[in-house]
Amino acid sequence: MSKKYNPLSVLFLGGVGEIGKNLTAIKYGEEILIVDCGSTFPSPDTPGVDLIIPDFSYLKEHKDNIVGLVITHGHEDHIGSIPYLLQEIPNIPIYGSDLAIALINHKLVEKKVNTAKLNVVKAEDKVKLGSFTVEFVQVAHSIIGAFALAITTPHGIIFHTGDFKIDYTPIGNSKPVDISTFAKIGNRGVLLMLGESTNVEKPGTTISEKHVGKTLDKIFMANPDKRIIISTFASNVNRVQQIIKIAEKSGRKVAFSGRSMINICEMALDMGLIKMDRENLVEVEHIKDYPREKTCIISTGSQGEPMSALTRMANGMDKVVVQDGDLIILSSSAIPGNEKAIYTIINNLYKRGAKVMYGSLEELHVSGHACREELKMMLSLIRPKFFIPVHGEYRHLKQHAKLAQDLGIPESHIEIAEIGDEIEIKTKKLQRLEPVQAGAMYVDGFGKISHDQIKERRQLSNEGVIVCVCRVNKTTKMLSDNIQIEARGIELREEDIAEVKMYIMKAFSSMDLEKPFNEKEFEKSAAKKVANRMAKLTTQKPVVIPIVIEDNSDFYE
Amino acid sequence: MSKKYNPLSVLFLGGVGEIGKNLTAIKYGEEILIVDCGSTFPSPDTPGVDLIIPDFSYLKEHKDNIVGLVITHGHEDHIGSIPYLLQEIPNIPIYGSDLAIALINHKLVEKKVNTAKLNVVKAEDKVKLGSFTVEFVQVAHSIIGAFALAITTPHGIIFHTGDFKIDYTPIGNSKPVDISTFAKIGNRGVLLMLGESTNVEKPGTTISEKHVGKTLDKIFMANPDKRIIISTFASNVNRVQQIIKIAEKSGRKVAFSGRSMINICEMALDMGLIKMDRENLVEVEHIKDYPREKTCIISTGSQGEPMSALTRMANGMDKVVVQDGDLIILSSSAIPGNEKAIYTIINNLYKRGAKVMYGSLEELHVSGHACREELKMMLSLIRPKFFIPVHGEYRHLKQHAKLAQDLGIPESHIEIAEIGDEIEIKTKKLQRLEPVQAGAMYVDGFGKISHDQIKERRQLSNEGVIVCVCRVNKTTKMLSDNIQIEARGIELREEDIAEVKMYIMKAFSSMDLEKPFNEKEFEKSAAKKVANRMAKLTTQKPVVIPIVIEDNSDFYE
Repeated sequence: MSKKYNPLSVLFLGGVGEIGKNLTAIKYGEEILIVDCGSTFPSPDTPGVDLIIPDFSYLKEHKDNIVGLVITHGHEDHIGSIPYLLQEIPNIPIYGSDLAIALINHKLVEKKVNTAKLNVVKAEDKVKLGSFTVEFVQVAHSIIGAFALAITTPHGIIFHTGDFKIDYTPIGNSKPVDISTFAKIGNRGVLLMLGESTNVEKPGTTISEKHVGKTLDKIFMANPDKRIIISTFASNVNRVQQIIKIAEKSGRKVAFSGRSMINICEMALDMGLIKMDRENLVEVEHIKDYPREKTCIISTGSQGEPMSALTRMANGMDKVVVQDGDLIILSSSAIPGNEKAIYTIINNLYKRGAKVMYGSLEELHVSGHACREELKMMLSLIRPKFFIPVHGEYRHLKQHAKLAQDLGIPESHIEIAEIGDEIEIKTKKLQRLEPVQAGAMYVDGFGKISHDQIKERRQLSNEGVIVCVCRVNKTTKMLSDNIQIEARGIELREEDIAEVKMYIMKAFSSMDLEKPFNEKEFEKSAAKKVANRMAKLTTQKPVVIPIVIEDNSDFYE
Repeated sequence: MSKKYNPLSVLFLGGVGEIGKNLTAIKYGEEILIVDCGSTFPSPDTPGVDLIIPDFSYLKEHKDNIVGLVITHGHEDHIGSIPYLLQEIPNIPIYGSDLAIALINHKLVEKKVNTAKLNVVKAEDKVKLGSFTVEFVQVAHSIIGAFALAITTPHGIIFHTGDFKIDYTPIGNSKPVDISTFAKIGNRGVLLMLGESTNVEKPGTTISEKHVGKTLDKIFMANPDKRIIISTFASNVNRVQQIIKIAEKSGRKVAFSGRSMINICEMALDMGLIKMDRENLVEVEHIKDYPREKTCIISTGSQGEPMSALTRMANGMDKVVVQDGDLIILSSSAIPGNEKAIYTIINNLYKRGAKVMYGSLEELHVSGHACREELKMMLSLIRPKFFIPVHGEYRHLKQHAKLAQDLGIPESHIEIAEIGDEIEIKTKKLQRLEPVQAGAMYVDGFGKISHDQIKERRQLSNEGVIVCVCRVNKTTKMLSDNIQIEARGIELREEDIAEVKMYIMKAFSSMDLEKPFNEKEFEKSAAKKVANRMAKLTTQKPVVIPIVIEDNSDFYE
């Protein structure tokens, strides 16, 4: 009885908006197993940001206790931050499917990180990492090589669904998901399930990937006179495989367009994950040498990303020149927040005379995430004692929790986490411990930027900026009335300029002249007084940058 | 035969993204009839902008020829710019429905514009304005008092659908739309139809407003123990009427929350457009004096507007404190671009313990715009000679044009306009004339701002700002190496600061020292050189503000 009891807990360390995504850790005693290490794309809320990565503070503090990093699948939100993690903690062994590891490796080469210990695992493989044994369970998703994880701990099994859907008729290169495997794991008794929640708002079940193939096939048959440009997620290797098959069947040459499409598809071809007659593959530069109606271009840009191939085509800036007689298909759906960018591209493609087919008009895409009936099935097969919904915004988690309750899991056995939460799995309940440091880090061209700088950027664009150069004679403690004012993003009227000057003078005259002149204090006070005055006059509160320069003239000579 | 032939044309003068919206003009000879004068709400693309209004240049140039302004209905995108138009051209007579005119009047009072000549018209009224005779035709829409316009010109009838849907079973206060009226107008022979295109991507027909009432009724019945807070568009008077009826039936007191909801509903109550027992109406401050489950709050904020009542509730900043036991219903759908803001509110309401029902889960809202089958019906009843699709993004107009072609209108009789287009209706064809000045003006707290300033704001937030104060002795033509540098929105590293200084010096040394020192030229060159250098080093291109101050010291003494 002298053996120490080691607590078991789950830590939610990453994600923006969505919880239980990007970075999760499972802790037994001191040992830490990391699940996924992804990134989030910037949004209009994070202007000028290139990438959002998790705050690694907690992992850095406990770096000697990390036993490994296991990857559910190769999407950016699950692998995109690995180079940044390895820059901080170089020696973590990483386990994932062939495609996930290939994608990670590509990233590491790009970022010149060469300390990685990468390990490819297959479905049903078991890997022992410290006190954890991780079993990789194949699931269907919008990328191949996707796993759920059955993690055996000394206190019981933690089952992490990863991102999944049920697809009884997956296309060519995927094995159908063996749902009896889930049942078997359930029968072994599962202590805790972490279940993805993306599509909990959608009733019914997802449609099979095969369905998209049928739709695309019909469209290709109906348009033998048109060049077809089709945009989809580069990582959706199965989708790309279907498109290639249909293109080959209709006697078309195929070209890949866009950096990530070319990278991933060439990787997948080399690995045998995509099969095609290499004779039919043409570089996008040379596709114009073939009759237009005998070509098909598979392109990135389905989310309206500013520098993607499809955006460049829509703006007339790509080597592929869109024109009358082109059919452009968006085989994708909009990730919330991207709608406006996507519609702008569609409008511009129409203006160039192309015919465009997209989500609102046809069934051109299926989701990779389980809908309500599939979520119910998974919960019913796994029958966990405790349940924590993950991979969703708060509203998704709340609805997934409700679903689990409807299926008989008591409310007290379900917990909704927030980013930074550590939740301990006790014998009779889940217990929320003190939160740990976690959250988002923003990366831009200058390196990492802080949350405060993001806020400042938003203020710059919403309210504009006023620079005031103030000449101060620090000896005589005088301010020259020759205050130079420059504004950007706003148009100062003459009366505004007079007000700015007056409030700078007010700030100066409220300084304590008994003490030596405090430049920083004056700048702070002037910035505040001017900004508040402008807010009162115009309802806008610009960023004010007062700059003191020393000038030893006698201003009032 | 000496009488001069007067050409007839349509001018598309307003709108952002959507074409044939906000401001349209019909011109016969010199006479100009304006249709609608609306505004657009800002988006993340237009940071810090309060409102987007049309460029009135063309109308100002031709102000003496304006015969009147006719209003299809009282939505912001059709009336929101009227105060700004009247500030430029005070004496335009305005014609619209009782509700539209009341809403316009409210706006004008707020903006202290008191030159307006407002005229209320009813369905079937005819108004002669110069050579035009405008007939107001009742249509169903998501606001009451909505008209299509049959405009008789010396060359024939122009039929403008306005925003419309077909609703055979409208609720209480609306008359069902008499589709035989459309047939009668069609039988008189229509020269040109301007048809709204919003829902051309949606198959079938819109659901009746009555349907929403039934759904809401069921929800109220199923939740007798909860306070109900329901958010919808303030101008959807019929929706508000239905909610009030259901609330009264279930014995609840009703309060309005949010400035526009209170304004419009009080207006509608006074005008008899909403009917209720005034005993049941409580000020929102006093609603807490009643048992929670016997109250219903009707609120603004269904689009996630930052300062709206629902956003304040979600953030715990409103007098209505959301808590466990509240049911919140969003009786609305997201206007594209608002999704993220709306989901943030829903997440926050869930976090406060409320139950939330919204679009994805239930049928809580119906569109006010005709779907494909209704658009076909309208085209088939009106049978115009020429057709111009309006009120949509380019892709909508293109698809609506295709629909018209499928119904037998020859391609040569259809034209897709862009903002600024003037399209002449000739005997045998539509002819696009030279474009006129048109487009968007941005309004913020400082007044009107230019497109360039909007671009500058975007750059400020995406790339940050660097201020460099440069001391120049203009006599000796020397630059002090004491260059003061401040940055906002980015974190300059030491090496960046050194680079900034070096490129300012490069700019200075490339100045022609034979000529007198040109401050503006130097500032321009320094800004460009520094920005380009930063772009090269970091891929970010900050706004650079060099400020020259004169300093007659001998720097190298």
